[in-house]
Amino acid sequence: MAKSVCVVGSVALDDVETPGGSAKNVLGGACSYFSVAASFFAPVNLVGVVGRDFPEADRRFLVERGINIEGLEEATGETFRWSGRYHENMNVRDTLDLKLNVFESFQPKLPASYRGSEFVFLANIQPTLQADVLSQLDAPEYVGADTMDHWIHTAPAELRALLAQVDLLSINDSEAMLLAGDNNVVRAARKILAMGPRHLIVKRGEYGALQFSDNEIFAVPAFPLEHVVDPTGAGDSFAGGLFGSLAADGEVTSRTLRRAIVHGTVVASFTVEDFGLTRLKGLEREEIDQRFRQFMAITDFQS
Amino acid sequence: MAKSVCVVGSVALDDVETPGGSAKNVLGGACSYFSVAASFFAPVNLVGVVGRDFPEADRRFLVERGINIEGLEEATGETFRWSGRYHENMNVRDTLDLKLNVFESFQPKLPASYRGSEFVFLANIQPTLQADVLSQLDAPEYVGADTMDHWIHTAPAELRALLAQVDLLSINDSEAMLLAGDNNVVRAARKILAMGPRHLIVKRGEYGALQFSDNEIFAVPAFPLEHVVDPTGAGDSFAGGLFGSLAADGEVTSRTLRRAIVHGTVVASFTVEDFGLTRLKGLEREEIDQRFRQFMAITDFQS
Repeated sequence: MAKSVCVVGSVALDDVETPGGSAKNVLGGACSYFSVAASFFAPVNLVGVVGRDFPEADRRFLVERGINIEGLEEATGETFRWSGRYHENMNVRDTLDLKLNVFESFQPKLPASYRGSEFVFLANIQPTLQADVLSQLDAPEYVGADTMDHWIHTAPAELRALLAQVDLLSINDSEAMLLAGDNNVVRAARKILAMGPRHLIVKRGEYGALQFSDNEIFAVPAFPLEHVVDPTGAGDSFAGGLFGSLAADGEVTSRTLRRAIVHGTVVASFTVEDFGLTRLKGLEREEIDQRFRQFMAITDFQS
Repeated sequence: MAKSVCVVGSVALDDVETPGGSAKNVLGGACSYFSVAASFFAPVNLVGVVGRDFPEADRRFLVERGINIEGLEEATGETFRWSGRYHENMNVRDTLDLKLNVFESFQPKLPASYRGSEFVFLANIQPTLQADVLSQLDAPEYVGADTMDHWIHTAPAELRALLAQVDLLSINDSEAMLLAGDNNVVRAARKILAMGPRHLIVKRGEYGALQFSDNEIFAVPAFPLEHVVDPTGAGDSFAGGLFGSLAADGEVTSRTLRRAIVHGTVVASFTVEDFGLTRLKGLEREEIDQRFRQFMAITDFQS
């Protein structure tokens, strides 16, 4: 039986502009993308905070995906809001506006029913809060974390303390090089593994991902897509698919981790095909499995 | 028996500066990198031009690699010289100086013994010259070409005429998007295939490569390297390994092309480990096969 995944992070309402169109007030935030992506594979326990303005339809959507939202606190105030615009090539974006609102004073509290979660993902929030969530869990089997340049710059000691406690770190290539102080991604990876995590995933957007451990490297391209509508949430969907897949397998081995990375790749490829979580809303598990098989065919050179 | 590869392009003497060191007067140019890379797999017929200053040691090195240099013309004047400097991250470089010298008035003439070459690669030169080389060949089985932004801008009609005659185009991602006028690499690929080539390879440097045909896509990462000394010639070594591998197999199928792309990837990964062609100089075929097997392990998620 699949083990459960507990995730903590931001739940937001986004306004997104791309060269091809725009969307307003769509469900976003790392925790939302992660949860929905993971829910195709395993039970998900969500920890986050929203304001009184959080749409009932979004709450219902999470529940309909089978996500446990007992840990989604409703605070007085407004939901975290982000507004951004993508450039012509979709790899660059500008943040037009950002209001943390209720997220600013977020103190994650895990419901008692979450404490036995076997798989845990600490999405990008203050490293001290990430550590605090860890301390509320009984005995997680496998802990993953994300972070960003902001925390690498402003909370390096707290981040290093956290890294000693996690099994997997999943970050962008530019963040990996910043964290390690090295321009070569392989050397940067070795330095980061020495900080504690036994697995490191370096996300490279449309170029795929690299996974490092002490004794192996796994390199995988992204799924080539003809129509990218909105890249928002790709990295978080990737992590969600990855952790969901691991929890479904129930154990972390070289084999389950590699397949989980491909599951993450596949789910992320669906996410970016429409604004926000629109594409994942109508997605069937069979479509994921079908694209997984397509991905096998696209990358195979051994048969 | 392996079929032979005929290649035409630049033979140069380079000065290279990187954050880690520098090298002066080293054998370079697309044709040199391609020929040496291909020579590990199949007989190579080189077509190029050098000046009276071309070092005897470089000529001897090409011959020792088994490369047929009957088509390496020695003209009055100096050899093509390029001088460049790489930035800290090695993905960006500045051309410090460029002197075409004898290459400026290069009119490729194929020795009679080359005319039966089955595999042909037209490295980056004026598209009219590329077409002229084609016309000197009896009945090549498979023709590949490279080009660059300069020809896309200044000789679009000549380039389009050439594209109607080639089987494979191998270019960088930025060039593919420029040529197609499309920011999405998959859509750009479809547009380029409509211009004539039945195979398109999009080179993405340290991120690997994509291969497109009408009915399939092949996506492959680069070989992750801890020490990149000099990226010069990576793309040309890739194309050389690829064409050498195809010629060795003697036929182009989905399977031989995919394995050839991985052979190109592997040879290119050796090239960048030292300045110029230094690393390839001492390379053994067994090292290529060993890294090919390593690459299988690094990319495998199906076993």
